Amino acid sequence: MEQFFAYTRLFNFAKSIFLKMGCSDQDADIASKALLSADIRGVDSHGVARLSGYVRLWEVNRVNSKPTIQIIHETPSTGVVDGDAGLGLVVAPFAMEQAINKAKNVGSGWVSVQNSNHFGIAGYHAMLALPHDMIGIAMTNASALVAPTFSKERMLGTNPIAVAIPAGIEPPFVADFATTTAANGKLEILQRKNQPVPEGWVQTQDGSPSNDANELKNGGALLPLGSDREHSSHKGYMLGSIVDIFSGILSGANYGPWVPPFPSFIPMPENMPGKGIGHFFGAMRIDAFRKPEAFKKDMDQWIQRFRKAAPAKGFSSVIVPGDPEREIEKRRMTEGIPILSLVVKDLEALATKFSVDF
Amino acid sequence: MEQFFAYTRLFNFAKSIFLKMGCSDQDADIASKALLSADIRGVDSHGVARLSGYVRLWEVNRVNSKPTIQIIHETPSTGVVDGDAGLGLVVAPFAMEQAINKAKNVGSGWVSVQNSNHFGIAGYHAMLALPHDMIGIAMTNASALVAPTFSKERMLGTNPIAVAIPAGIEPPFVADFATTTAANGKLEILQRKNQPVPEGWVQTQDGSPSNDANELKNGGALLPLGSDREHSSHKGYMLGSIVDIFSGILSGANYGPWVPPFPSFIPMPENMPGKGIGHFFGAMRIDAFRKPEAFKKDMDQWIQRFRKAAPAKGFSSVIVPGDPEREIEKRRMTEGIPILSLVVKDLEALATKFSVDF
Repeated sequence: MEQFFAYTRLFNFAKSIFLKMGCSDQDADIASKALLSADIRGVDSHGVARLSGYVRLWEVNRVNSKPTIQIIHETPSTGVVDGDAGLGLVVAPFAMEQAINKAKNVGSGWVSVQNSNHFGIAGYHAMLALPHDMIGIAMTNASALVAPTFSKERMLGTNPIAVAIPAGIEPPFVADFATTTAANGKLEILQRKNQPVPEGWVQTQDGSPSNDANELKNGGALLPLGSDREHSSHKGYMLGSIVDIFSGILSGANYGPWVPPFPSFIPMPENMPGKGIGHFFGAMRIDAFRKPEAFKKDMDQWIQRFRKAAPAKGFSSVIVPGDPEREIEKRRMTEGIPILSLVVKDLEALATKFSVDF
Repeated sequence: MEQFFAYTRLFNFAKSIFLKMGCSDQDADIASKALLSADIRGVDSHGVARLSGYVRLWEVNRVNSKPTIQIIHETPSTGVVDGDAGLGLVVAPFAMEQAINKAKNVGSGWVSVQNSNHFGIAGYHAMLALPHDMIGIAMTNASALVAPTFSKERMLGTNPIAVAIPAGIEPPFVADFATTTAANGKLEILQRKNQPVPEGWVQTQDGSPSNDANELKNGGALLPLGSDREHSSHKGYMLGSIVDIFSGILSGANYGPWVPPFPSFIPMPENMPGKGIGHFFGAMRIDAFRKPEAFKKDMDQWIQRFRKAAPAKGFSSVIVPGDPEREIEKRRMTEGIPILSLVVKDLEALATKFSVDF
């Protein structure tokens, strides 16, 4: 069902495809690094499995492989970036770099992005702040698959939020999560296995509960974090809305049901109010608040205390955000990255199409 | 079971109590306004019902009624405020004002607060940004009642997040929510009615599911938003953790299981690593990103489109965050604020104790 590939092999292949799309060497490098970060961290749905999806967006002229990415409005601590329809994988690191530079100058930097495309995993971009002793924040809107509480209509994307926080001797705290009960990737795993999904993940076209992993294909919707009103799905709906507004409206991108879809074969929404999809990034210098040593000592104590929290009956220990992905990364960098045969076939087809080695 | 009181009457009473505690006239005014904002917006658990709780904290010297609140570290866009053990109801508006001033100067302002106490509802402080055409953000940590995913131990508070976003002809978007499935206030309502709580709100002392509204008194815990692992409670746990770290660790306040409890009779945690409880505030100028008219036009369209989202079977319409509280406020400002007889008795006892009129 799956084959193992070395990181470098997948990286070089992805880079060769981005180069064939017309990306500069530097952009192909940046994009491949962002894309592969999903594969090494275990977010298999967002890595090389999406490479052919990016290619198709370029083929229908929705991705510009030679974008002029620039700041179109700014203050010392804020700015808006126009991605010029570039790959989100390239636009996002550019925007995050602006946020980091602003944080260097005035303590924090906040950048909203218009006219972009899907940027891979949010966590990768948030983590770019860590080597600078900064807290990194990344979020993005995405095409509508999620129904707000009380609705049957798809109005919001899975709109993830990532926050990366440096520690001292402990590894950093890294949270990266969709604002839905279940990410689409988890649904896809159960679809492939032909298994039902737990109640509270999806609803039918008319808004009734469902266990069908294929409900989205029938016009159903994903549910906001919380699942139903009794379990506070309105909070997941609010979180997804905040991500949508910070990413889409602060920047002048599209928002809500108007965010362009990732699959190139789905027609674009009518009467789109903005440009492309939107992201939002933040960087805060630790020493803009406190002595970094004091902060890191407390972060270490926080992490160590939470790891030691008494486990509930039937569980062995509490997990600190970022631990599972880091463990997967360590393993995959030595043992290789498992790729499903379906995805391997897809990559082979890309290799043939562009006459590159795989 | 309940009596109705005019806003002004409750405001004047609260102010007279804060004055008796030794607050300055200005501080008593600020505190009463923040406190009453909960009663008028329908968050009955956080308003005058807590007045005697604040008094008891002052009686045991945990609240300083004459604090010297000051910035102890800052950059152009960030800062840390020491609340000098003052009422959070007074410290928070001071810190939010600093964030707003920084946003006026450099586009955005971010202030973390140490050495504070409970600040009432987060939404009130976030909304202070709205008249300045800014987005306002407020969060706070609180004493540990919530068990992380896989744990039976109380490690986090209900750690609320509030985000207020201005619109044009539409009223502002205001989200204000605890990062748990159920806020403690909702639990208290069912306790008073002697009713069970839905599964997924609380767990027993050993981490098993429970429907008992009194489970917290038995050593049980509230559950993070998402309720269980299958419904992504790790996302609620991550959200609560981010609030804890931004509020407690960026500032040098206490965090996790060391946050001081609100009830004055509960002993303070041992080996507390910081000072008091922590908050975190943000303000972002709209025109630091985009022309305010363009932003507001899009916000109006967002709000109108979400109000019109097709309702699910059995529901009449989708709610835009902030709408319910604003409707309650409108009604209560004309019809009065309903106060439970138990709370009325509590306020009467306060009136007697301090020899003031109620």
